[in-house]
Formats: sequence, structure tokens, C-alpha cells
Amino acid sequence: MTYCIAIKTDNRLVFASDSRTNAGPDHVSTYSKMFKWGVPGERQFILVSAGNLATTQAVVERIERDMKESALENLLNIKYISAAADYIGRISLEAQNKNANIGMSAGFNAESTFILGGQIGTEPANIYMIYPQGNHITCPETTPFLQIGEIKYGKPLLDRVITDKTTERDAVRAAMVSMDSTIRSNSTVGPPIEIESYHIDTLQAGKYKHFSATDPYLQLLSSSWADKLLEAFLELPELPDFPNDNLKVSPTQTQTQTQTNKF
Amino acid sequence: MTYCIAIKTDNRLVFASDSRTNAGPDHVSTYSKMFKWGVPGERQFILVSAGNLATTQAVVERIERDMKESALENLLNIKYISAAADYIGRISLEAQNKNANIGMSAGFNAESTFILGGQIGTEPANIYMIYPQGNHITCPETTPFLQIGEIKYGKPLLDRVITDKTTERDAVRAAMVSMDSTIRSNSTVGPPIEIESYHIDTLQAGKYKHFSATDPYLQLLSSSWADKLLEAFLELPELPDFPNDNLKVSPTQTQTQTQTNKF
Repeated sequence: MTYCIAIKTDNRLVFASDSRTNAGPDHVSTYSKMFKWGVPGERQFILVSAGNLATTQAVVERIERDMKESALENLLNIKYISAAADYIGRISLEAQNKNANIGMSAGFNAESTFILGGQIGTEPANIYMIYPQGNHITCPETTPFLQIGEIKYGKPLLDRVITDKTTERDAVRAAMVSMDSTIRSNSTVGPPIEIESYHIDTLQAGKYKHFSATDPYLQLLSSSWADKLLEAFLELPELPDFPNDNLKVSPTQTQTQTQTNKF
Repeated sequence: MTYCIAIKTDNRLVFASDSRTNAGPDHVSTYSKMFKWGVPGERQFILVSAGNLATTQAVVERIERDMKESALENLLNIKYISAAADYIGRISLEAQNKNANIGMSAGFNAESTFILGGQIGTEPANIYMIYPQGNHITCPETTPFLQIGEIKYGKPLLDRVITDKTTERDAVRAAMVSMDSTIRSNSTVGPPIEIESYHIDTLQAGKYKHFSATDPYLQLLSSSWADKLLEAFLELPELPDFPNDNLKVSPTQTQTQTQTNKF
């Protein structure tokens, strides 16, 4: 599995991805799931992926080949980020379908999901989730982030922290904490964590950092979050007194309460 | 969907369940998912359920009918909690199979998953997750809790808080916070929240409380947790400086960095 996040604030697009892939528990590897292309001053694209690794690699190769061969439609001549999402959806579907009917498909799933973000010229920057079916959605204004892969463990924090006014620092930290929570609770998501932050309207490459499992900041963040979460938990308001239970009893016997228990 | 938790500490079994059921987004209802039976001084059972509501209701009816009719095997004569888990697994499978071959099964899923906890006589108290296939597992000693339904949103907190030494108060609060996080991030889980806490070796009914959406303590807990989580997040160590990205560039153009961006 995988976990990737894209956050869109008023002035940044922030992306985070883990690096663990597995084809069964005895075939666990480390692959980057973040891909970037750009022409400074003109266009910038960031792509993160979840799902079948062969499909992802086929899509990335095709994107690069189409640019190299100046295909009719490629990331260098496309006019809108949403059109680029359409294009990637189409080549993803082609890559998935190529192996769909080979008669060896029991338990085989070629699906990949992507998040594409970026900006072209004076068009607004945006992020899109591209489904395995090839169609895509952008994020809602009230919760301006998208997730793919193992999205549930790390969603509560993002739900509480991320708005369009979130600063770049907070967006990056939130993405890293969301990633850390997921890594801790699910062994199919793992470091290194990659972070990319694109400054909207610069049309220049963003800032990038790669955090290995032994990165001192990642370790500090992880242990601080564990401590603070526990501290926050222990400071929660005390429970009210609980009454004894009014148990449903067996038809022939009566459950009686012998004492008043309180928390 | 549903979210239920069972926690086993050195001296308590703590259970939590939400109350939302839905058969499609236009058919959302409130049902209790917690069922209890007991003979004071002799045996206590607590059952929570996730999955198909008809299967759950069939299982609960069958359990009660078997007790009433003094069936060969029923909760009043069974000797071990694990044997009770076997029994419930068997009647769950029967209930699921009853409607499996009626030729109207497109998109139909009769599966239910249960957690059974309790104690019989001098046997040790325990909790078991009963799969739709009828088999069951208990929890690992290092993370002494089980979850069914929408388990992922609320797992990170339980992973960090729950041990076999956790006090009853903390176990109940952790279950409620885990439930609150899930309710906030997933609309198929909703209040009322039911809590049951069985004091191991008493063989008496435990303590019980039902928290509606407007319960003052649930609201206080929810808002305190939101505040404290945000506070904890904002106190995390500052990000290190991020270098500019070393972008992969298009084949015909060069991406150059024009400024040194730092977080």
C-alpha cells in the first residue's frame, strides 16, 4: 500500500509521499512515489501515485516519452492542469487495460490512483485526484486536501488542521504527522517520506526534502507527537460517574446489582 | 458502517460502540450495536457487532431463543468464552448463508463481524473478534484491544494509549476519543455512543453509559480534544530549512533555480 497527500493552501501546493511498496509480505521494497516535471517560468507538475507499481511506472515512462517525442498531447504543450489530469487518466487506463485480459488475473489488480498538482502559465494552480477509471476530482474548498492509499489513519489530523489559510510550515508538518501516524499503525506504509512544496504563481520548482527513517527531524517529530498526544489525552476532562448497568438477563434468572460502582 | 472497540486491561473489559446504521445514504438509522447477557455471580457476556443488520439481529434473536428453549448449546450452559465465540460464529454463518443463494445477491453482503467479551466462573475473562467466516481471534498482549467496522481513523490513538496497565478511566476516555475522531472523519459512524465496563472477576454486570450527540460530557470531550490536538500540533518542533528542488526537467529545457527558498 501507500500513503500520499496533497494540500492546497492560498499560496502553496504541498505534497507528501511514503516510499514502501509490497507485492505480498515477502516482497517489500522502497520506491519513490513522487514525480516532477517543469519548465521554469512556464509550467510545473507534481505527481504522486498509489496502487499497482507496474501501472505507475508505465504511466511515468509514457509521460516522459510523450514529451521526448513531442506527442500531440504531452505535458509540455498541454494548456490546463485539468487537461493534464485527463491525459494521465487516459494513459493510466491504457496501461491498466493492457494486462487485463491475459487469463492470469485471479487476485491481480492493475489499478493505480494518482494526485496531480501544478500550475501552467497564468492559469490557477490546482490539485486533482485521478481515479483508476481515468476521471478526476479536485478538493473541496472547505477541506483543501486530497489523499490516496491508506488515507484513514492520518485523516483526523488533517481534518482538524488544514484550511486554505494554513501556512506552508504547518501544512508540511501536518502532512508529516499524518504520515507518521499512518506509518505507526500500518506496516504497508513506510519511510523515506518525500515532501515537495510548490509556491503558487512562481512557476519555479518548489522546495523538496527527503526524510529517511533515521532522519533526526523525522524522529524528533515522531517522538514529540507521541509525547504531546499522550499529554493532551491525559489532560482531557474527567469522566462523569457511570451508573451500574441495567443488564438484560436470562429468562430464568435475575441480574441484581450488589454495589454502586463509579469511575 | 460501524465502529466498535473492546479493550482488555488487567482488571477491566471496556466496550464502546456507535449507533449509526445505513442501508444506502437515504436510509440512515440509529440502532444499538451492543448486547449483554449475564447471570450474576456465574457468567457475563458483552457482544458488539458490525456489518449486516439483519444478520446481527438474527444472531441476537437466536442467542436469546437458544437460552429460552434451553438448547443443547446456549450462553447459560456454555463453559468457556472461546466456546461462546465458536457458537456465535456458527450461528452467524448460518444466518449469512440462509440468504446467500436467493439469486438477488448483486451488491448484497450479509457478512457480520462481532466482538464477544466476558467471563464464565473461574475461567479468565477475555475478548474475541468473530469473523464472518465463523472463526475467531483474541487480542495480542502488547496491544490489548480489538476493533471492528471503521477501525482505521481511531487506531493511532489506541496504539499509543492502550496497554494492559491502562486504568479504567483512561480506557473509557481513549475509547470515546477514538470514537469521536472516527465520527468526525466518517459520516457512516455516529452517536449515540454506548460504553460498558466490566470489572474482571466480579461476574456482575459492569457499568454502562449512553452518550447522545448532545451529551454535555461528549461535547466537552470532543471540543477539548480538538483544542488540545491543535495545541499539541502547533507546539511541534520547527521544520528544518528545505533546499530548493532538484527538478527533473523536460528534455529540451533546463530548470534553473532563481532563489533560495527556505521554510
